[in-house]
Formats: sequence, structure tokens, C-alpha cells
Amino acid sequence: MLILLKEIHKHLSRNYLVTLALFFTALAAKAENGHELWLRKHNVNPVNVVCSKNSATLNIARQELQQGWQGKTGATIVLTIRSDESIWSDGYKLGASGIQANTELGILYGVYELLRRQQIGQPINDDVSNPSYEYRILDHWDNLNGTIERGYAGNSIFWCNGKDSLAVTEKDELLWREYARANASVGINGSVLNNVNASPKMLTGEYLKKVKTIADVLRPYGIKIYLSVNFSSPVILGGLKTSDPLDTEVITWWKTKVKEIYSLIPNFGGFLVKANSEGQPGPQDFGRTHADGANMMADALKPYGSIVMWRAFVYSPRERDRARQAYAEFLPLDGQFHENVIIQIKNGPIDFQPREPFSPLFGAMKKTSVMAELQITQEYLGQSNQLVFLSTMWEEFLQSDTYKEGAGSTVARCTDGSIFPQKYTAIAGVANIGLDTNWCGHHFAQANWYAFGRSAWNNRLTSENIADEWIRLTFSPHQTDQPMSSNISDWQRLFLFPVKQMMLQSREVTVNYMMPLGLHHIFAGDHHYGPGPWYAPKGLRPDWTPPYYHQADTNGIGFDRTRTGSNAVSQYNEPLRSQFNELETCPEIYLLWFHHVPWNYKMKNGRILWDEICYHYDTGVQQVRQFQKIWNQVQPYIDEQRFTEVQSKLRRQCRDAQIWKDGCLLYFQKFSRRPIPLDIEHPVYDLNDLKKMDFSTIKTLEE
Amino acid sequence: MLILLKEIHKHLSRNYLVTLALFFTALAAKAENGHELWLRKHNVNPVNVVCSKNSATLNIARQELQQGWQGKTGATIVLTIRSDESIWSDGYKLGASGIQANTELGILYGVYELLRRQQIGQPINDDVSNPSYEYRILDHWDNLNGTIERGYAGNSIFWCNGKDSLAVTEKDELLWREYARANASVGINGSVLNNVNASPKMLTGEYLKKVKTIADVLRPYGIKIYLSVNFSSPVILGGLKTSDPLDTEVITWWKTKVKEIYSLIPNFGGFLVKANSEGQPGPQDFGRTHADGANMMADALKPYGSIVMWRAFVYSPRERDRARQAYAEFLPLDGQFHENVIIQIKNGPIDFQPREPFSPLFGAMKKTSVMAELQITQEYLGQSNQLVFLSTMWEEFLQSDTYKEGAGSTVARCTDGSIFPQKYTAIAGVANIGLDTNWCGHHFAQANWYAFGRSAWNNRLTSENIADEWIRLTFSPHQTDQPMSSNISDWQRLFLFPVKQMMLQSREVTVNYMMPLGLHHIFAGDHHYGPGPWYAPKGLRPDWTPPYYHQADTNGIGFDRTRTGSNAVSQYNEPLRSQFNELETCPEIYLLWFHHVPWNYKMKNGRILWDEICYHYDTGVQQVRQFQKIWNQVQPYIDEQRFTEVQSKLRRQCRDAQIWKDGCLLYFQKFSRRPIPLDIEHPVYDLNDLKKMDFSTIKTLEE
Repeated sequence: MLILLKEIHKHLSRNYLVTLALFFTALAAKAENGHELWLRKHNVNPVNVVCSKNSATLNIARQELQQGWQGKTGATIVLTIRSDESIWSDGYKLGASGIQANTELGILYGVYELLRRQQIGQPINDDVSNPSYEYRILDHWDNLNGTIERGYAGNSIFWCNGKDSLAVTEKDELLWREYARANASVGINGSVLNNVNASPKMLTGEYLKKVKTIADVLRPYGIKIYLSVNFSSPVILGGLKTSDPLDTEVITWWKTKVKEIYSLIPNFGGFLVKANSEGQPGPQDFGRTHADGANMMADALKPYGSIVMWRAFVYSPRERDRARQAYAEFLPLDGQFHENVIIQIKNGPIDFQPREPFSPLFGAMKKTSVMAELQITQEYLGQSNQLVFLSTMWEEFLQSDTYKEGAGSTVARCTDGSIFPQKYTAIAGVANIGLDTNWCGHHFAQANWYAFGRSAWNNRLTSENIADEWIRLTFSPHQTDQPMSSNISDWQRLFLFPVKQMMLQSREVTVNYMMPLGLHHIFAGDHHYGPGPWYAPKGLRPDWTPPYYHQADTNGIGFDRTRTGSNAVSQYNEPLRSQFNELETCPEIYLLWFHHVPWNYKMKNGRILWDEICYHYDTGVQQVRQFQKIWNQVQPYIDEQRFTEVQSKLRRQCRDAQIWKDGCLLYFQKFSRRPIPLDIEHPVYDLNDLKKMDFSTIKTLEE
Repeated sequence: MLILLKEIHKHLSRNYLVTLALFFTALAAKAENGHELWLRKHNVNPVNVVCSKNSATLNIARQELQQGWQGKTGATIVLTIRSDESIWSDGYKLGASGIQANTELGILYGVYELLRRQQIGQPINDDVSNPSYEYRILDHWDNLNGTIERGYAGNSIFWCNGKDSLAVTEKDELLWREYARANASVGINGSVLNNVNASPKMLTGEYLKKVKTIADVLRPYGIKIYLSVNFSSPVILGGLKTSDPLDTEVITWWKTKVKEIYSLIPNFGGFLVKANSEGQPGPQDFGRTHADGANMMADALKPYGSIVMWRAFVYSPRERDRARQAYAEFLPLDGQFHENVIIQIKNGPIDFQPREPFSPLFGAMKKTSVMAELQITQEYLGQSNQLVFLSTMWEEFLQSDTYKEGAGSTVARCTDGSIFPQKYTAIAGVANIGLDTNWCGHHFAQANWYAFGRSAWNNRLTSENIADEWIRLTFSPHQTDQPMSSNISDWQRLFLFPVKQMMLQSREVTVNYMMPLGLHHIFAGDHHYGPGPWYAPKGLRPDWTPPYYHQADTNGIGFDRTRTGSNAVSQYNEPLRSQFNELETCPEIYLLWFHHVPWNYKMKNGRILWDEICYHYDTGVQQVRQFQKIWNQVQPYIDEQRFTEVQSKLRRQCRDAQIWKDGCLLYFQKFSRRPIPLDIEHPVYDLNDLKKMDFSTIKTLEE
């Protein structure tokens, strides 16, 4: 001890100020690992909760209030379940003295909203809040061996590796409860527990038994369970000779299987099906249509009031333009699907690219329930390494006008029942959740989970609102551990505002350094991480290689989808069809999506296309460097662990952006044969090196 | 053919301007691979050469004039060998009508100078030019298996791989002739053919026979051959029981061996010896001194008028400060060396670092011939990947004032005989030459070979002069293949000036991003390429690990060599001793070489040390980016091949500079515990990744 004091004394005398500074820095922020998400513990006040009923869900509501109340000490909150015409589904009415809802789950949602408002300092008026979609679902692409397709945050929270894959531990149940709570807090009410590339094993008795256990944990939080099913299950599991959806034995097999599921899980939600897509079996294997297949399953589920989500993600190597195919295959079936089938359509016509125009199916099917499939996991947007707030992308998508029933027919309104009287309204997001302590790999990827839930509940929320809420909930300083010199308005000015700005810009920044101006799918290999506009191994399906998508040659670049090209524009309603078709009226953000454009084409700002491409890539790099600077400046306002982890990810993002810029510019320059403008930074990599670069290795380096 | 014409027609009509531009670009610059060095072929005029004598050397002189004359058509040039007091050694007198010299080699040197002046447009007055040093030697660290220690431009031009290592082809002889000519053209007159870590095999009959062949090719160009010898040769080759330099059998063995050499190579130059250094054998193995060893060899060589170059590069792991040791070991021997021993001393006290103060031995030994050993190969300065013009470093070294005999006792004057009457004056450079087509790996590394020769001839030449000459000789456009739109003054303004500026800044830029403010030897592993201030494997000699040199701790950074530290300052003459010793007067470029300095020490510009370190590293990165920009702008004035190859190297240098900056700042920050200033770009790498980075792999990627 004496030695220690002597040490301290020595330091104090030698370098008093440094020591003092370090001391206060240590005080300033307690370590946080991100596991608490947007539901961090705070100092709370006592509250009286009045509720005439008891149930698992209502008990949670009561407990959340008692453990999270930041309002007036000793206040009384009344929870009332009473039918009210202004309240729909699990919506709720929020007032100063209590929460009213039609359902227990509505009460719980109201509680989370009330606590959220208290924490972020929003007023509580007599507000009614109803969900935009009845089904707000997370699709987990989790494999039964524990891996996750396109998962970047560790293995599955549901399925474990190895022999014990069906065992359930207390730790599992705790994690599932935390997961369910996080979902309920943002209004998510369904989980598809397994990959759409579904193992038939999913429907075996032993796996269903585990599903039951999971369902039991999730049920009080209002989370229903759904399963992805393999269309060949009748043959593989049932030993039938066929899986033909019109075969009576097959029909019976599915009915029996559904009955078995409901005997275990009375609130089971339904099936998700990827059929005749990327090698998955489906009704077309038997000369039947998607409608035949979907309807057969829907009929089996109908007695239980549940649904089939049938994916429209189909494309064939024989077609000239992949972007046209979902529409071409599904639109003719409009009207043929049974009521409890929902067609699940990816936001864009290709595949979760950094930017796509909306899929034209959203403005086309009117006699069929359609739902959007968004991707929360960042398969094509930097995975768990890059800070990309996806909310702005989803907002752009949901607010896109399809013009189906005149101006204002946004995708949001085409899917939420405002325009077409579809019985079931739904939205799905492919989850970004894994066993990583912080759930999502990147602390800021949590914001995408949060934003999906919030937008699914209210598809008119702005990204700015969502980002503001999330930052306040996730990073606001605890009253007890605030840096001495700072106060809340410092925090807003020096943390909240710059970080929010960064989040709101981040998707456009990514578009800039990855694929600006409508470029798409120019990734290397099948990892979908680094650039690979050159990637085209001999013998690979052309529609799995980037040159298919960018079409660069010495004349220009871009995919001609105009009337004289693949005519994909014809799938859009007027005036979009003409607007997209004409070079002059096509929005420049979609330019190379719809047009093959000469390198010297004059852009609206007067630059030629090639130069504009160069500036976009360079701007992207500079913007990520700016993010890095912003983040380094907020260090005093955040705990060490999350600061350091995000700092490290942003470094990686800077390197990645440089690689993207260099790879794309050097490769496309071989076609444009034009100089990179001299007032921007030139590539620092050589193309040949980048071609040889192993992005999976680079990824490993980090970990 | 018809198809081809149609194609052309199509292109013309479609994109006429692009095609036209490409066409002229193709015309503008013929491909060059750099093999011609600064001796590129030009259109020449006829000239009459009058010379009363014939000899191999004079024939070369005549031929060079006839093949390189750019003066008046039909002019007459008289070559006169006549003794003249104003001319020393192989010097010459240049006049409008001819060249006069004492020796044939003097004539040849005069011819090269005259042609050089013609080409770069310098006037030819009645100038006398005498060499600063009598011996101007390239040390090749070539191993007999063909590899080169610290060689970055391919394998040895002298020694081949495998079984045929002693065979000589016509191609070999042609290459040696080109090598000899290049050397002669800049005044180099000696070559040590093998590594200082010498194989005893070098002195076997079969190898000497090959040496004779090489010597025969090089002789007409005035290049004498030297060999590095292994001190244990008497035991290993001669079968003696000892290699003790005082042993009579040993003495006899060396005399006999020398005689054998001279029977083959009558103009043999002498030996270079690395003894008792880094594991090499030497006289101390037998309780003798360096003087005993060197004198024994010198005596064997004396009858032939040749020399021993004995290296002072010695250090032991037992000493506290490696920088002190050469001085400590050699100064006491001053006066004991025989006349034809020259002590070869590296420019700095450690080992060819990006910046070192001069070795104090240069201002100390006065009764012994001393010579500088420079390193042309860029072992510690980015090897063949980075553009670093070393001339400014050598100029800084040669013009350093030792104060030995009062102010003005520069290293140049201490070694060229102006101050001390040493009989032999010499200078050596470790060659950067290999089998690469462009000889040196990097086109700009040729400038270092050129600069070494020019400075060895005239140690008062400025780096700016040398760079100007070299750029004009190496890159000036041929009259016949000039871009149509440019003329010579455009070329000067837009190529010569910016490229010269870049070269002149390049060494300081490298110091900035590698080791500013006196930092030294913080390389990773033993490749001496990438950063490794953290590198300290367990059990490794401390003086082979960077922490030994940077001494970073939470208080500060730098090696304390003051009076109260290792007292290395005491080896310098006053006023340097006091100047270096005091923190306030020590030049900041040597600050951390001589002092352990607190992180918050106030620099002359008002910044604290830590911030200043950060700014230096960042400035280095920005400067390399600026080089990249400069080079991209000169593209219209240079052939495609050299443009592209240098462009690629500069990209690499940008990446390297970033890695250096990030590695050093992140590592030292662990000690400084201070933020990196927010107005500079922050690291984009994580320290842990950099620690794992394999720089040899990175190097391979490039090739």
C-alpha cells in the first residue's frame, strides 16, 4: 500500500494534470458491452400500477413499469383493457393517467411507448397508436446446425452446434426472453425461427418440441413463431412418393403436420416458403404454379387462422434480365391465391442492394396480399463491419410512389391496407441477430433492428425520428456517471446531433463508395462484401457475375432496361415507366439501373458520367473519413468499450471504402479510358492486387 | 481487313474524339523499360574525333562521342592525354574543342561529361573537373548463390543460381558491359563483387577465374574489382589450424592468395572486410585487434598498391548504447593502421536509418584513412517500393560539420583529404542493382545509383543539381516522339519542375511517415520494411528490437544519449557535444535520438511533443498523396510503361505510409495516453491487425 501511495504521489508530482485527466475519464463512463440494447437500466422512481387483471403479458407490463418508471414519484398508472373503435389490433391509447387497449399485448406496447417517451423526454398526450401492419416479423436465416446464412454476429441464438442441438439451457431461455422483450419493446410480433433455405428436419417431432419451448418463452411478449418449410417435406419426412401440392396424400400430410404443430404450439403463426428459387424445391417441379403450392399450404393452416408467406424471389439463368422475373412470374397469378397467402416480395427487383428502385410487384398485385421483405442483416451493405443506418433506405422504399391508384400510391400504402383491401397486412425483416454479446456485431447495427420494428409499427415514422429515439435510448449518459464538466445539452450538441447526422447520411455514403448512380451487384465472389466488378469465373451463371449487371464496355456502363433494352421499365406504372425510360428524366440515382449510358454523357451538374462516377466514389471515401472524425470527437460522451469497438469498425470502414473506390474506378477505367479527375485522391491500390485480395481473410484479420 | 475497316469506321463515327485521343496518346511516347538508365539513345550528329592513341578505353571514348554527339554537325573533338598540374587523378579539362586528361580514364570521364552537358543543355566552358575521392566504389552484397542481401531488384548480375554458377554467357558479358558503362558515365571506378558477409568460397580458384572474366569486361571502363573476404579463409580454405593474423602461416597464406589473385587480375583493387561484426569471424577471435587484422591483409596487398577497406560496423549486445560502439572500439586504434588500410564507416552511428546524425568517428580519427559507407539500396527506406531520392540525405551527411578542426570541418572535408592528409580517399555505396530489367526495381531508385556516382566524383554537388541532371537525362522527351501539343518548356514546367520537387522532398517525407524527430530503428522483424515499434520477441537481443531504440514509456519517448544518459554526445566535438546534450539546443530533427523527452514537452512551434509526432506522421501521409497527384499529372509527358510502373509504386507508398502512421501512432499512444489531434486524419488500421500483418506477404502481392 505504501508503495502504491508512493507511486501515486510520484505520478501526481510528475504529471499531475495527466493523472487527473485520466482519473476523470475513468469516472466519466462505465463500461457497456451493448447487450442491453436500447433498454438500458436507469435510476427509476416508485410508481403504482393499477390493473384489474393478471396474466403473463400483463405481469410483464406491470414489471416493466415498476422497473423503468422515470416519471413522477408515486404516480398511479391505470392499465385498462376495453374495446375502443379508435384502437385497432394491438394498438393502444396513451394518457397521463394510464394506458388503454383492446388486448393485453396492446397494454404491453403502450407501456414500452410510455417508458420510451419518459426516457427521451417526449410529452405524453392522449395519443392513439395503431400498427401499420398486423404481422411484423423477423425472418431468421438460422440453420439447424447453428450457423446463420448472411449472419455476421455469431451463431444462432436458437440452434446450437453439434449433438446437443436440441437441448435447452437456462441461459438459452434467458437469452430468448431478452430477445422477446427487445422485440416487444419495438412492436415486433413474430419470428421465423429458421432459414428460408429450409432443412426438412425442421418439421420433425424432436425439432418441433424445441420450437414449442421457444414459443413458450416468447408467447408472453406477444411473439408468434413461424417456420420456414421445405416443399419436399412430404417426400423426405413423410416417405410419400411425391410432394405435388394437388396430390391428396400430400394435402393430407400437410394437414396432419399442421395439426401436430398446433397441438404443441397453439398460437403458431404459419409458414414461410422459398419455392422454386435458387435450387429450392417447389410446385413447379410437378407442373404446378406458385398459387397451387401456396394455396395447398394455406388451406392446411386456415382452420387455425394462420398464414403462408410465399416468397416472390425467383429468377432463372435463362432470362435476359433478372430484374423482370418476379413480376413476370407472379403478376399473372394475381387473384389465384387464397386469402391467407401473403406474397413476400423483397424491396427491390434484384436482391437487397445498397440502392434499388422498388419492386414493380408492389404497384401491380391488387387482388393478393403482398408484404415487403426487408433485410436487416447487412448482406450487401458492409455486413457487421460498416456503420450503415438502413432506415433511410427503407423510408425511401416505403415512400416510393407506385402510382397504382394515382399519385400517392406509395409502397407503404399499397402494403398496409390503405389502398387495397388485403385481409392480411405484414412486413418482414431478415434478422441481424446472433450470439455476439451486442447481438448484432456492430453497435450501430442494433439501430437497424430497432428501426425495422419501429417502421413496421408505424410506416410513417421518419428516419430522423427513429435515429433520434435510438441514440437517446442507447447512448444517453446515466445521471450518476456523467462527466463532471458536461450536462445534457452538451451531450445533445456534441453527441446526439453529430451522431444522428452520421447515421442519416450513412446509407448514401455507402452507396457512394460501393455503387453509385444505380450500379448494383458488383460484389466479388459470393461473400457479397468487397468489390468485384471484374468477377466472372468461367462457367458461372452470368446472372451471378457482376458484368451481367454493370455491362461496362468502351462505350459506356449500365443495364439497359428501357423499352429498347430488357423493357423492365414496362413493369412500372405511368408516369414512372416513361420517366425511367428516358435518359433525361430518369432520376440519376437510378441512372445505370435503367440505362446503358455513354461515358461522356453530360450529367445534370454538367460533369460527364465518368467524372461523376469518380467523384461519387471519392466522396464516399471522404465521407467515411468524416464519420471517423465525428466519432473520435464524441469520445468524452461515451463509455470506453462501445467507443473503442465502433472506432475500430469505422477504421475498417475507411479501409473498405478505399478498396471499393480503387477497385471500381481502376476496373471501370479500363473501359472508360478516361483519366480520373486530378482534383480528387487517386487510387492507392493496384487493380491486380485487389483482384487477388481475399476479403474473407481481411475479415478474419479483424477478429 | 474489311471487317477491321468497318470496326474502325464504327468507332470513328461513334466516338471519334476518344479514338483520336487514344491515337495520339499512343504516338506520344514510345514504351521504355528503364534498362537504358540515364543513357538513352538520341538522334545524334556526325562528329570527328581526333585521338593520337588507341586503347580499349580510348576506343570506348571515341565510340561514345560518335554515338552520342548532339553538338554541331561535323565538329572536331580532340582527345589529349597530357600531364597537367590542375588535373588530379582521373580528372579532366573540358573545352569547346576537346578534352584533356592525365589518363585514358580521365578522357573517358570527360567524354561522358561533355555528352551529358550537351544533352541537358549546359554550357561547355574551359572547366577542370577533379574527383573528390580517388576510390568511388559500389559494394555489392551479392551472395554466391545469386541472392542479394538487402537486394530489391532481382538476383545478382554477377552470380547465378544453381549448378551453372560459374558459367559465363554472352548475355552476362553484355550486361556487365552495360553495368560498367553506366558506372563509368558517373565516375564510379570500383566494384566489390560479393557480400560483406563473405563466403570463403569467394577465394577459391574456380570463383577467382570467374572474377577474372568479370574484371576483364569491366577494365576498359576503369572499374576495378574488389572482393569481400572471410577472415577465417586460411582455416576454411587453406586447411590451417588458425586464422590468427599474427601467425606466420596465416600471413603467408594471405600473401600467396593475393599473389594468385594478381596473376589473374593484374589491376585487382583490394579487399573489403567485415570482421567481428554480427557473427563474422575476425582478429578478436584470436585476441588481436582490428588493426592487427587489417594490417596483416594490408601488408599482403601493399606490393600491388592496393587497399583493405575495414568496416567499423561493430556492436555488441552487452553494451548499453549501440550508437557509441564503433567509436569506442576504433578511436583507440587511430594511428595503428597501416597506410593502405581505410576504415569504412557507415554514415550514421547505427545503421542506414532514414535519419541519423553523422557517425562521430568522422570527426575523430585523424591518423587513419576513413571512408564513408552509404547505402544506395533502400534497406530502411522503403526498399524498391518507395520513391526516396537519397541524395538529400547524403548531402546532409557530407555537409555535416564535425568541428574537428574548427567550423567548416564537414564530413566531406574530413574524408576527401582537405583536412587530414590521408593517403587514400574513398567512398562506398551499397549497390541497389539486380537483374530487374530496370536494374533497381523502382525507376526512381536509378537516381540513387546516379547520385552516388556523381557525389562520389564531386562531393560539393547539390542534390538539386543532381536531380535536375538525372531527370533531364532519364525522362526528357525524344525529339521525334514528342506529344504534338507540347514543347520543351512545357516539359520543364509540367514535368521537370514538379518531379524534381517531389524527389527533393521525398526523403524528408519518408522520415515524416516512418520515424520523425530522431526516432530510429522501429522496424518490424528483420525485413526492415514495415513498422514494428512493438516488435520484441522473447529472447531476442534487445539491440535488435525497436523498444531498445525508442524507449517509449508513459513519461515520454526517445533514447537518452546525453551526459546523464549513455553519454554518446561526448563522442562529438564541441560545440556539437553541448548542443546535442541540451534539450533546448538539440536540433529537433535529432531530438529523440539524443533525448528521452516528455510527451508534453513544448516544441519550438508551441505544440507538445505528442501532437508534433502526430502531425509529422500525418504530414508524411498527405505528402505521399501529393506525390501521387504530381505523378498522375505528368502522364502526358512520359511513356506508358514507366508512368504505370511508377504510378503503381506510388500507390503502394501511399498504403505503406498509412500503415506506418497508424502503427506508430496507435502504438505510441498507448504510452502517451493522449488523443490524436482532431484536425488530422485518424488511423484507419487497428493496432492488432497491424501487429499481425505480414509485410513480406504484402510485398509479394505487388509482384
